[in-house]
Amino acid sequence: MVSSPPRPTELTEDIHAFGPARATIQGQPLSDSEVEAMDAFFRACNYLAVGMIYLLDNPLLKEPLKPEHIKKRLLGHWGSSPGLAFCYLHLNRIIKKYQQEVIFLAGPGHGAPGVLAPVYLEGSYTEIYHNISEDAHGLKKFFKQFSFPGGIGSHCTPETPGSIHEGGELGYVLSHACGAAFDNPDLIVAAVVGDGEAETGPLATSWHVNKFLNPARDGAVLPILNLNGYKINNPTILARIPHQDLESYFRGLGYEPCFVEGSDRPSMHQAMAATLDYCVTRIKEIQRAAREEGVTTLPRWPMIVLRTPKGWTGPAQVNGHKVEGFWRSHQVPLADVHTNPENLKLLENWLRSYRPEELFDENGTFRPELKALAPTGNYRMGMNPHANGGLLRKDLKMPDFRQYGITFEKPAQIEVENTRPLGVFLRDVMRNNPTNFRVFGPDETTSNKLNAIYEVSKKFWIAEYFEEDADGGELSPNGRVIEMLSEHTMEGMLEGYLLTGRHGFFSTYESFVHVIDSMFNQHAKWLSICNELSWRADIASLNLLITSTVWRQDHNGFTHQDPGFLDIVCNKSAKVTRIYLPPDVNSLLSVADHCLRSKNYVNVIVSDKQLHLQYMTMDQAIVHCTKGLGIWDWASNDEGCEPDLVMASAGDIPTQEALAAIALLRQEFPELKIRYINVVDLFKLQPETEHPHGLSDRDFDSLFTLDRPIIFNFHGYPWLIHRLTYRRHNHRNLHVRGYKEKGNINTPLELAINNEIDRFSLAIDAIDRLPGLQVAGAHAKEKFRNMQIEARNYAYEYGVDKPEFSHWTWPF
Amino acid sequence: MVSSPPRPTELTEDIHAFGPARATIQGQPLSDSEVEAMDAFFRACNYLAVGMIYLLDNPLLKEPLKPEHIKKRLLGHWGSSPGLAFCYLHLNRIIKKYQQEVIFLAGPGHGAPGVLAPVYLEGSYTEIYHNISEDAHGLKKFFKQFSFPGGIGSHCTPETPGSIHEGGELGYVLSHACGAAFDNPDLIVAAVVGDGEAETGPLATSWHVNKFLNPARDGAVLPILNLNGYKINNPTILARIPHQDLESYFRGLGYEPCFVEGSDRPSMHQAMAATLDYCVTRIKEIQRAAREEGVTTLPRWPMIVLRTPKGWTGPAQVNGHKVEGFWRSHQVPLADVHTNPENLKLLENWLRSYRPEELFDENGTFRPELKALAPTGNYRMGMNPHANGGLLRKDLKMPDFRQYGITFEKPAQIEVENTRPLGVFLRDVMRNNPTNFRVFGPDETTSNKLNAIYEVSKKFWIAEYFEEDADGGELSPNGRVIEMLSEHTMEGMLEGYLLTGRHGFFSTYESFVHVIDSMFNQHAKWLSICNELSWRADIASLNLLITSTVWRQDHNGFTHQDPGFLDIVCNKSAKVTRIYLPPDVNSLLSVADHCLRSKNYVNVIVSDKQLHLQYMTMDQAIVHCTKGLGIWDWASNDEGCEPDLVMASAGDIPTQEALAAIALLRQEFPELKIRYINVVDLFKLQPETEHPHGLSDRDFDSLFTLDRPIIFNFHGYPWLIHRLTYRRHNHRNLHVRGYKEKGNINTPLELAINNEIDRFSLAIDAIDRLPGLQVAGAHAKEKFRNMQIEARNYAYEYGVDKPEFSHWTWPF
Repeated sequence: MVSSPPRPTELTEDIHAFGPARATIQGQPLSDSEVEAMDAFFRACNYLAVGMIYLLDNPLLKEPLKPEHIKKRLLGHWGSSPGLAFCYLHLNRIIKKYQQEVIFLAGPGHGAPGVLAPVYLEGSYTEIYHNISEDAHGLKKFFKQFSFPGGIGSHCTPETPGSIHEGGELGYVLSHACGAAFDNPDLIVAAVVGDGEAETGPLATSWHVNKFLNPARDGAVLPILNLNGYKINNPTILARIPHQDLESYFRGLGYEPCFVEGSDRPSMHQAMAATLDYCVTRIKEIQRAAREEGVTTLPRWPMIVLRTPKGWTGPAQVNGHKVEGFWRSHQVPLADVHTNPENLKLLENWLRSYRPEELFDENGTFRPELKALAPTGNYRMGMNPHANGGLLRKDLKMPDFRQYGITFEKPAQIEVENTRPLGVFLRDVMRNNPTNFRVFGPDETTSNKLNAIYEVSKKFWIAEYFEEDADGGELSPNGRVIEMLSEHTMEGMLEGYLLTGRHGFFSTYESFVHVIDSMFNQHAKWLSICNELSWRADIASLNLLITSTVWRQDHNGFTHQDPGFLDIVCNKSAKVTRIYLPPDVNSLLSVADHCLRSKNYVNVIVSDKQLHLQYMTMDQAIVHCTKGLGIWDWASNDEGCEPDLVMASAGDIPTQEALAAIALLRQEFPELKIRYINVVDLFKLQPETEHPHGLSDRDFDSLFTLDRPIIFNFHGYPWLIHRLTYRRHNHRNLHVRGYKEKGNINTPLELAINNEIDRFSLAIDAIDRLPGLQVAGAHAKEKFRNMQIEARNYAYEYGVDKPEFSHWTWPF
Repeated sequence: MVSSPPRPTELTEDIHAFGPARATIQGQPLSDSEVEAMDAFFRACNYLAVGMIYLLDNPLLKEPLKPEHIKKRLLGHWGSSPGLAFCYLHLNRIIKKYQQEVIFLAGPGHGAPGVLAPVYLEGSYTEIYHNISEDAHGLKKFFKQFSFPGGIGSHCTPETPGSIHEGGELGYVLSHACGAAFDNPDLIVAAVVGDGEAETGPLATSWHVNKFLNPARDGAVLPILNLNGYKINNPTILARIPHQDLESYFRGLGYEPCFVEGSDRPSMHQAMAATLDYCVTRIKEIQRAAREEGVTTLPRWPMIVLRTPKGWTGPAQVNGHKVEGFWRSHQVPLADVHTNPENLKLLENWLRSYRPEELFDENGTFRPELKALAPTGNYRMGMNPHANGGLLRKDLKMPDFRQYGITFEKPAQIEVENTRPLGVFLRDVMRNNPTNFRVFGPDETTSNKLNAIYEVSKKFWIAEYFEEDADGGELSPNGRVIEMLSEHTMEGMLEGYLLTGRHGFFSTYESFVHVIDSMFNQHAKWLSICNELSWRADIASLNLLITSTVWRQDHNGFTHQDPGFLDIVCNKSAKVTRIYLPPDVNSLLSVADHCLRSKNYVNVIVSDKQLHLQYMTMDQAIVHCTKGLGIWDWASNDEGCEPDLVMASAGDIPTQEALAAIALLRQEFPELKIRYINVVDLFKLQPETEHPHGLSDRDFDSLFTLDRPIIFNFHGYPWLIHRLTYRRHNHRNLHVRGYKEKGNINTPLELAINNEIDRFSLAIDAIDRLPGLQVAGAHAKEKFRNMQIEARNYAYEYGVDKPEFSHWTWPF
């Protein structure tokens, strides 16, 4: 046991040489027989990893290796596998020794063989996949299925027991780990960071997760940077900077770095065991101080820098080239084993170097005395319920969202900031669910007008406080609102939180949600695979509020105008994607309530934070949002007959402009029959064959008619609506307006005019589509064009929109 | 002059207190009158910044401030403006003192008033925009236009003289700066990093740019972290960690951090001047050692941590709340000046605190003795030609791309890795252009089979070398291939390189190009604004090769399958976006040659790196790529008549499958007339009204017919083709196949089958669309379905595709 402060060794400055372990933490906590057993476990892991990459048959090498035992196509990544397995088995020891719950996140997920192997050896794999039995027969299947058509992927995919982090796209392991640790006070989340991954932006900033963990209430993240030195073909940056710099870097980031460096296995086992003993002891001490003594300052959490050779224990040389400890071991170190008998022999020798006959019995079953090194039951990292978070998920205790709504006499008469009542609703969700709900945002919760939440829970802050923070800073070490100016980190934390069975809400600027396009893609992919795995329990949906939208960038201009995230969302599986554009307070509340109750989706809600007209009473909003789209009778005058024109819209500003256009048209042409349709649930537009929310053609036709002109005013890029509706019968008459990159510093109306989503452009459009108005409409069109000019001139002179336009109300 | 090593002060541990300057570098290089003059310049900058945010009139405060002098809508960001101006004016001193070329990048671009002000004061603004004259009249316009409709944006937009970095989206200032410094040995690129920005992932990893600068050949990046402590509503992380940690952090990143901290202006001027003297001296010393003594090791570049109050020199308190030095000064500190006479008075006092009467003469012209503090001519940072890089751009010396092509007898008979000859071509582009062309990639240049480039130029590496690197490491401190596992950093460096007048090429994995969706968006926006500014000279296009595509992810599976970047590209202005999908070696070379010669675009080239069939001779490829799409006669049998069916494709694998489908159909139904159309230039599909490359309807109709079924096999998500073609006459008969998220570990053919882009699905599709085949086709459909089953079974058994399918050749 290490309980005194660490005694740093004199680490040499040599960042190249491997050999006997050099470590910050000294100690020999293992007996010789323990070292031997742990190394046998390590050998078993590595044997399995090589087997997965190469073997189609002869899994226990009962006979000499022949070309027909080898997979035709050799796929997989050997290089980072041994390091991952080494961490895994040493964490097993910790779990057993301290009865400590640990889950394992493999940043370099392409080293999945190094994770799958110990998950299989501990019995978790077979418990979930009965056909992969713990014997030669199962082993053969286990080997074959790896990175094989119809089998499993080569990363820590959802199919991997115990995984909540695939590691296919690099950069998110620490933010995922932090999200998993939130509100799990007894959990340690071990996060292996690859040194390639460490070069990505998202990872580089996510070292700061240590500033977001409260040791009193949260679990711990234990980062293990596995410095194996190489990427595909290159050295890594962190492996080639001076030792002193590397230590400074992590101290600067607020950690206590503990180095474990070397390749000599017995001494490395001792060093890793001593280091993990130290880290767990430090973590427990930090937590004890916070929990028992009420210490609320930012602790210096330990982390590990594990410098091991890439492809450790693999072939030292192949065809005269260095392989172990070099980038040449990144994927498949011996590639021509089918045709080159020498290399086939080398592969056999490599496999036999792990002495499989000592590791598996006659039947191919892992020897019980070695298996006993792994924990049992749910202490196994492959079976830990936190890593199948749906098992632990509890429904949110939801307040009645209807009570947060607003009331009014008539539609489209008063303006309210749409997101503000949502903040009050979220405040009470937070109050009702004090340990399994969090709100995330990159420095924007107040800016997005959700700040009522702070009445119940502040922004988390555990670093230095200044006295002025008391004046509106809304900071607290008990806060459950998480803000950091990194969309990547916020998204990653939220994903980690959801994947471990909790609930959350993320609000962010529309334009910059593109920063996490790729993270959305990966999470959607994860969810769609989970849908196919019966053992993966349902998790809460990822709820993303996109606000500060394109149409209201008064401060910010062109760079802040980009509604294209929806296009990204529509590319992903219809099973996991939902998009809502509620135009007012009550519909936003109804949608938010629905989203917070849902499971296994990514819900994207688009709603601006500024003042907007209010259209629907709460009862109307509920009906409307449940249908997803519908005619607003009060805004339509086509009762009982086919309209001359269908005007539709999705989104707050587009709805206001569409309604104002209807008013202009009806004022000019009282006989004109116009139907107005509001769309909240965007996927209603798609055919039912394409999306579960899709309208049948019959329903679509009855709303949008078979032959009348439709003008659709859309929040986003106009083409998205065409993409969703191109198979609809009346698509040829559908004219969509939306954002088309015509922006700069503009008043709201001027921006609308530039992009032709304004009332005047729509009214002119309508006249152009109505053959009956070709003559009578000319005067009106002229009038509307003049009103556009007037609007623009006013804006250019005064810098604001003319009040009669900006505070327009429905006139009928 | 500082020439001895730095003597660090005993910096206190207090990260809160402002007051007299505390600095690492000691010295009082300024005389009292210099301090006074520099502070007058600083006051002028701040006066202008406040004026821009508030004033519509009365620009010199010749009369008491009245509500009608104030803009109705107050927009802009005061908080970071003073810090930016402080840096700018101190850099002016350095430029003059050392006759040193410097350009200025403002990471916190929303502090544009702090940049626009000194750009105006030095005369650059008026030189470019004559109507903004250097007098009261011009000043009034200068104030009014800021963040005003019809005026200029509130960031360092392209309209800002001297800007190559808008800073609207945060995170890219250091990578842009590094790109600007490459191959500009005499340039210092000063990059102010905001402490909010410093929390983003892209910025956090981009501190590593110091590992990519060769002091012998490149200029220097001087990062200035302006630690003003706050974001919109929150403290920043780096401003609240212990002083020692902050220093460790930057030492760990390889810098020599020089702290300048305080709020007392005279001592801050002295400290900043001494520090900049030191930094320039250190930079020159590092460069001298590299250039004269041949030192090739990684130097420890200096950087500055400038801790100043947010909203420095602004109101200390407003309405009883702390403002200066707090987040409340982020945007507009005094908001209710129209209605609150007390605050209007406060604003007037604030403006008068800068003593404008001392700064501007009777006419409102900046006093010449103060203007003389700024450099003149092209030494002015607002006029430095590097920041209007097109002025310096030289056309690439292009080798004849035709000589890198391949020859063959008949189309679709041999397979070649498409990207490999491109590598040879790029090698010679590199050879011909040794100082203004670079290649970027996140660790993938070899993996993407472009490694012929290394024959001329290695990968840049200046950190520690190991002996094994000699064996295929391809590393060199003179390398011009830049690799780091950060798409963000690569893209940012390339943008910086292009914006300063050079050329480049970026290759990256298709799926992970989504990591930089947002950077693409911002660069495209920048380019489209530049198109409207006559004084911005043309720059080279950003050339992006997307490879390791969705259809060949044998190693990696589902996470690596995402062709959706094209959807993002299509949302941006048609004036700046181009997409090409050359299917073979010769067309890829032709497209690459065209892209490298083009200007002001983002060119996206999609081409896989694996073995693919070769279709076009070089002459054919040139004709085909010039047209952008066309009928391949050899693959069609509709000579002289309307076809029964049009089969079209875009992309390598989709083309192979489309052709194989045609072969299957013609073998079954020899009478069937099929026209095959290959699309290389995707925007040809759009109407000419939407994109300059778009085909006229007449041309489109003559190719795709008015009424025949079209089956379009697409590389990406199928809906994109509908989006581009929904207005075409024959759109109702267009059936598109593409990737639809049906993937895992698959053989190429199996993945194609899952997503229905395979030959069998296409052939079945075709039969279903051809009324004449409804009966005769049943047998063929059955046969094709069986072949699918056979293909899948083979893949599941052997892990590879059946050779007759994977090595298919055109049979006619």
